[in-house]
Amino acid sequence: MPTVLQIDFPFDGPFDEEMHHAMHALAESIIEEPGLIWKIWTENPHTKEAGGIYLFSDQASAQAYLDMHSARLTASGVQGIRAKLFEANQPLSQICKGPLQ
Amino acid sequence: MPTVLQIDFPFDGPFDEEMHHAMHALAESIIEEPGLIWKIWTENPHTKEAGGIYLFSDQASAQAYLDMHSARLTASGVQGIRAKLFEANQPLSQICKGPLQ
Repeated sequence: MPTVLQIDFPFDGPFDEEMHHAMHALAESIIEEPGLIWKIWTENPHTKEAGGIYLFSDQASAQAYLDMHSARLTASGVQGIRAKLFEANQPLSQICKGPLQ
Repeated sequence: MPTVLQIDFPFDGPFDEEMHHAMHALAESIIEEPGLIWKIWTENPHTKEAGGIYLFSDQASAQAYLDMHSARLTASGVQGIRAKLFEANQPLSQICKGPLQ
C-alpha cells in the first residue's frame, strides 16, 4: 500500500540554490532507495525548517528509510526531527489529483 | 512558487473506505479551491491521525486555504491541528521525481 512519510526539522540552511548545490549528490542517492517512488524536498527559510514529503510503495520500505535517514540526520547534527507515516486514502486522493505513483 | 502545505491532526475515524464515503463530496470541493494543484489524503488508524499533503501554485493560495480549512476542521470538532507551509526545492525535488505540477 502506498505510504507517505513526512519529515521536518529545525534547519539553519543552506536554502534554495545553495541547498541544491550542497545536496544534489544526496538527492541522487535518495532516489535509488528501495521502495521510494518520489520525494519533494521542503524548506522554509523564514521559520528555519526543512524536510521532505516522500511516497513509498509500502510501509516496510518507508519505515526502513525513516530509521536510516533519522540516524543520518542526527549524525549530521540535526535535532528535533518530526516524522510521521501515513497511508494514503486512494479514492479521495484520486479525486484531488494526488500523485500516488 | 510551488508551496507545500502539510496538515495532520488527531482523528478517530472513519478511515479507509468509510472515510472515502463520508468525505468524497468534500474532496470534490477541495480540488476546486483556488491555486490547488493536488492533495494527497493521509490517514493512520493505528496512531489515530489523519491529514493531507497539498501542493499549491503559490504561498498566498496555500495560506488562504489553511486559514479556511483550519476553521472548518475546528468547527467539526478537530483539535490539535499541526500545519506547516514549505517552499519546494525544485532542482532537488526534480532529481527525486517529486511531482511539482
